[in-house]
Amino acid sequence: MSGQELYKRAKKIIPGGTMLLSKRPEMFLPEIWPSYFSKALGCEIWDLNGNKYIDCSIMGVGTNTLGYGNPEVDNAVKNTITLGNMSTLNCPEEVYLAEKLIEINPWADMVRFARTGGEANSIAIRIARAASGKDNIAICGYHGWHDWYLSVNHNTSGDNLKKHLIPGLEPNGVPLNLKNTVFPFDYNNFNQLLKIVENYKIGVIKMEVLRNQYPTDNFLQKVRDLATKKGIVLIFDECTSGFRETFGGINKKFQVYPDITIFGKTLGNGYAITAVVGKREVMEHAQNTFISSTFWTERIGPTAALKTLEVMEKIKSWQIITDKGIKIQKGLRDIAKKNNIKIKIFGLPSLTGFEFKSRNHQKYKTLITQEMLKRKILAGNLFYPSIKHSDKILSIYLSELEEIFNQIANCENGNSNIDEILKSEISHMGFKRLN
Amino acid sequence: MSGQELYKRAKKIIPGGTMLLSKRPEMFLPEIWPSYFSKALGCEIWDLNGNKYIDCSIMGVGTNTLGYGNPEVDNAVKNTITLGNMSTLNCPEEVYLAEKLIEINPWADMVRFARTGGEANSIAIRIARAASGKDNIAICGYHGWHDWYLSVNHNTSGDNLKKHLIPGLEPNGVPLNLKNTVFPFDYNNFNQLLKIVENYKIGVIKMEVLRNQYPTDNFLQKVRDLATKKGIVLIFDECTSGFRETFGGINKKFQVYPDITIFGKTLGNGYAITAVVGKREVMEHAQNTFISSTFWTERIGPTAALKTLEVMEKIKSWQIITDKGIKIQKGLRDIAKKNNIKIKIFGLPSLTGFEFKSRNHQKYKTLITQEMLKRKILAGNLFYPSIKHSDKILSIYLSELEEIFNQIANCENGNSNIDEILKSEISHMGFKRLN
Repeated sequence: MSGQELYKRAKKIIPGGTMLLSKRPEMFLPEIWPSYFSKALGCEIWDLNGNKYIDCSIMGVGTNTLGYGNPEVDNAVKNTITLGNMSTLNCPEEVYLAEKLIEINPWADMVRFARTGGEANSIAIRIARAASGKDNIAICGYHGWHDWYLSVNHNTSGDNLKKHLIPGLEPNGVPLNLKNTVFPFDYNNFNQLLKIVENYKIGVIKMEVLRNQYPTDNFLQKVRDLATKKGIVLIFDECTSGFRETFGGINKKFQVYPDITIFGKTLGNGYAITAVVGKREVMEHAQNTFISSTFWTERIGPTAALKTLEVMEKIKSWQIITDKGIKIQKGLRDIAKKNNIKIKIFGLPSLTGFEFKSRNHQKYKTLITQEMLKRKILAGNLFYPSIKHSDKILSIYLSELEEIFNQIANCENGNSNIDEILKSEISHMGFKRLN
Repeated sequence: MSGQELYKRAKKIIPGGTMLLSKRPEMFLPEIWPSYFSKALGCEIWDLNGNKYIDCSIMGVGTNTLGYGNPEVDNAVKNTITLGNMSTLNCPEEVYLAEKLIEINPWADMVRFARTGGEANSIAIRIARAASGKDNIAICGYHGWHDWYLSVNHNTSGDNLKKHLIPGLEPNGVPLNLKNTVFPFDYNNFNQLLKIVENYKIGVIKMEVLRNQYPTDNFLQKVRDLATKKGIVLIFDECTSGFRETFGGINKKFQVYPDITIFGKTLGNGYAITAVVGKREVMEHAQNTFISSTFWTERIGPTAALKTLEVMEKIKSWQIITDKGIKIQKGLRDIAKKNNIKIKIFGLPSLTGFEFKSRNHQKYKTLITQEMLKRKILAGNLFYPSIKHSDKILSIYLSELEEIFNQIANCENGNSNIDEILKSEISHMGFKRLN
């Protein structure tokens, strides 16, 4: 059975087809994308029919910076399974992991764990609201699917989360009473944030330290100073940016420190574990509310994270993936230039993305996926390199991509018609209802 | 290092000490409980110093009905790790698991997965609110830590969740705007529910099918009929009751069917996986809102659940644990009678609990833990048997407990003083701030 056949079954019984928007086949190549994997190792993935691909795309949505199936992490997890994953008593690994995360974040004193990023975001928000005694929040970035966050789209201004990663999110099922409790601000727009803080009783500021833009005009420090001055709890969401440019949060590069920070994605190299790390005076408010879940006590999560951190620290994985990302970005610029195509590169090197400066961007992105798939490479306009992406793989990727850039140049020049060479529907952008 | 030494370190860096209230050492035996495990197998647990105990208590908070370290489940999970736990593509097991859960619940058509019970509850609520177009909810039972649920304690009547498992929950950090959106009703009090539905615009009724009481006067069917008549989405939370008396929800015993049901706990025999299972017309509303999380795509969860369901079905584990529970309840009655102690037994047989009809209940419960620990048995007033609790273990448990019941009888008779024989603080009841 092919992945697309299984996906047809999935869409009948799983609303939306998958558990994560970013893994929907339609986000890549509608009706063609392999959709499901049987095996993943290093930076290679096998589909259900045993076809092998090199993953030059999102590497598990940015989870696997050490590659798929890192032997040290996997052996630690297997050993934990042999010893027992769950019991009536707690696993000691959660204490060791908390201690390690505090060592990595010397400004912080206390830690709570969850298993998903959405949960970690909700825990941080609960603690911060309890600590500040205020319900209102200013946000900048993507912070998950929970009510508190999605309520932004109840505010009168409409599709507010469009600028924060995902357009088209409908807040159906989110209580209307949450309207005007969360206010979005644009990255690097300090004056906008200032107005929000002045006009509403903001108790919490939550933001991604950086996603696709770098801070200008001392933005991060200004936000920090504002929060300190107004007694606002500042949360950095480092689920995506953590362990990509430093051994910890990307905030370290800017020497700006929050009251709470959140880690996810990379923390367990593909195993489910997320963490909320913060200052004692704020985190202690977790004791004035109720935050508790059975499966936060399973042992695989902290086991995987402890070993992942050990391997990361030993090999300085953040430097390796950043170096690879820089090579990719340079290569992209080169092949674009050679083919006289205008592209804009965005994101951290280890989270490289690019956009065609053309009204046909989405079609060209879809074409890349279509053509690279023929070459047994999973690719689109995002490439999150892992330590397993060798120089040889990067140069295969770039030379194959160059041929497709050449096709795109022909389309741009009018020598070829993108609508004719595209064999599938255009890939989806953002959230869209499936039929 | 002992578990209590590690726990002292934990309390300094983890607010509340553990990730789950029910696993706090203070809930068992303050300053003495072993707290952490190094190994768990069958129904035995080894602490950090290698002391081995028989678990005659909550067996991983009711997760491990097949015992700790079930070889079939563990081998399936280890194999998944060898093949790869995560990738850019989806795991096929989530589709197979969805199909299996629909087979088990023929009234249902669609499934979503999460990794914790709190999440599954929030997903069900989001979908149900979106489907009904109304925000207000009536609840009966324990449904997790999230804002929507905890907001009940913002309502003017105060400690509303006291009757629903946990007293003393402070809703700090939960937006005040959520006040009067969720209304609790007492189990078996249909008239109370009717009034709530008449007075507020209720779109969703969520309840545990049964926890400690059995339905009387056709209660479940009346709730079902009311929901149908009023166009209310009915959710059964079977996180705790699922796969304990039937192969699926306990609702099967009563032949009353919800619009959505939730499974957790037992579903993966200790591995993190939870499911939201429902009718198409309701579940499809997941597509009109945004419900998405990276770690819901990891592969261990559905792998473990598929194998757990296979093993459960093969051996009819729900019958085995129910039979054991019935034996335990009979044994408890016998040893109480022999010692002339008055106890009240509550809960499903496989979730047996008992209460001393004495103002010293909490002290006696603590004494049981203290004395059983000396006998290398983990016990309190709850015993959730697994298939690994042999008749021999049950009779050891009961004969050791009988000696303690005899001590308790002496206390009740005034021949002994409970305050003198108790070597620790009294165990905590419900939520309490730790120092």
